[in-house]
Amino acid sequence: MSQLEARLKETAERINTALDGLLPREQGPEGRLLGAIRYSALSGGKRLRPFFTLEAGRIFDADEGSLLRTACAIECVHTYSLIHDDLPCMDDDDLRRGRPTLHRQYDEATALLAGDALLTFAFELLADPATHSDPQMRCKLIAGLAKAAGAVGMVAGQAADMEGAEIGSDLIAVTRMNRQKTGALISFAVEAGATIGCASEAEKTALSRYAHDVGLAFQMVDDLLDAEGVIRDTGKAVGKDKDRGKVNFVTVLGTEATRERVGMLATQAKNHLAIFGMRARVLLDAVDFIVSRRY
Amino acid sequence: MSQLEARLKETAERINTALDGLLPREQGPEGRLLGAIRYSALSGGKRLRPFFTLEAGRIFDADEGSLLRTACAIECVHTYSLIHDDLPCMDDDDLRRGRPTLHRQYDEATALLAGDALLTFAFELLADPATHSDPQMRCKLIAGLAKAAGAVGMVAGQAADMEGAEIGSDLIAVTRMNRQKTGALISFAVEAGATIGCASEAEKTALSRYAHDVGLAFQMVDDLLDAEGVIRDTGKAVGKDKDRGKVNFVTVLGTEATRERVGMLATQAKNHLAIFGMRARVLLDAVDFIVSRRY
Repeated sequence: MSQLEARLKETAERINTALDGLLPREQGPEGRLLGAIRYSALSGGKRLRPFFTLEAGRIFDADEGSLLRTACAIECVHTYSLIHDDLPCMDDDDLRRGRPTLHRQYDEATALLAGDALLTFAFELLADPATHSDPQMRCKLIAGLAKAAGAVGMVAGQAADMEGAEIGSDLIAVTRMNRQKTGALISFAVEAGATIGCASEAEKTALSRYAHDVGLAFQMVDDLLDAEGVIRDTGKAVGKDKDRGKVNFVTVLGTEATRERVGMLATQAKNHLAIFGMRARVLLDAVDFIVSRRY
Repeated sequence: MSQLEARLKETAERINTALDGLLPREQGPEGRLLGAIRYSALSGGKRLRPFFTLEAGRIFDADEGSLLRTACAIECVHTYSLIHDDLPCMDDDDLRRGRPTLHRQYDEATALLAGDALLTFAFELLADPATHSDPQMRCKLIAGLAKAAGAVGMVAGQAADMEGAEIGSDLIAVTRMNRQKTGALISFAVEAGATIGCASEAEKTALSRYAHDVGLAFQMVDDLLDAEGVIRDTGKAVGKDKDRGKVNFVTVLGTEATRERVGMLATQAKNHLAIFGMRARVLLDAVDFIVSRRY
């Protein structure tokens, strides 16, 4: 295991422990709903967004407690988006992280509501004084998360993804959809770390450009894995985008050109971090991990 | 039209105008999603929760701008809950406010995402400095809304409602479910007005007890209307709870006993407002309106 993978694993474990402590216990009349929430939120996953928040914040020696709670809130939003995305009226997926999707394990209504609850919980977490002593900072994080996740961010990307046929093979439209669907939340994850760390405007710009490129590269690799991968590695069904007539980078650009762009974006992402020198070592390594990942 | 009805109508119009201005315009690649959001959010409705926020705040001469934006956020959460509640995997309803439900007018995926976006937007609204100059106040409102709407509030009530058969005919369980499903958000609507108005603890307690009783009475009347009403008045399908084997106050208590309790709750709700004298006149009148409403 590389140093970066070890660090990712350590972050994932910290997030799991933190979320386990923060999410309501599976008890009382809401037991089934709370069980469903925990089933999805504690099911593992790479915890890549929390990783970005923690590592971006560490560049500025930001408070670890603030970073951790914010990272958990972002992961709740990510998990809710996966739950809703997997529903029959959306992607209708049976597998997620190697286990039955939430609506397969429970039922559709419970999955819908568990997603709603996780989205709501993210804001409850951020609004709590335990996240940061300065309410102005908490409001900034809430506003940023809501914007990244909402009607002109992640949700817009999911809507565009469902209307795949209408996007056609327009690279600009595909890029825009992916910027919204996965890029917006990845960008916010990085920016949240910078915000909590009180980064300067120049530092924020550099990190935001890094996040932009990494987010796109991440999605391109996802599309490559979908086209080539096997279920064993990704823990979810593959080859479905093409079967469904969905549009993604590989269907528009082809495998080779997509791989080429991933390489260009990786180089570019790293260049944005130059101003931080070795303080950004982990974020630099993360680029290599993301472009070479098999899951 | 009674004085109260005129005031309700005026509030509804103010909320419609405010929401119309606050919600993103129906344009660009997200046009369809944004159109769906606006279809539901601007479809009328009683705007009862916003009314409670405004009128509770007015007791304390709270800032109208703060009240209005907060009222809009609460109405966004209410609208999202209706959209998701109407989905095929939940109540599978075709009519809402006299028009096709969102998933009938658009499609299921769009309805799901429009609901998600409205919930998210509520927090974006509240986090904005335009809602209140004090970030501490904004965080308080966000935390309160998230708690009322989340996994131990409204969403828990919706989950319990779906598991109707398991609740059986236990009055305590039915009351608890309704406290969560509709009561929690109605209570928060009243409390938000008091919070923005910087009410004293005693005043907050009085209003919170009022909200508790009004919320329950409101739901009992809803159940009575479902059992007796006609589509023309309510703008939604009726008599469905019993058909679906759902449990509500009427199925547990019967019509007569439910009506009796509504009367008791109404008297009790009014008594809680005694400390405000005539400053609470509108909230007093609202009780009579709610228990005698036909829609």
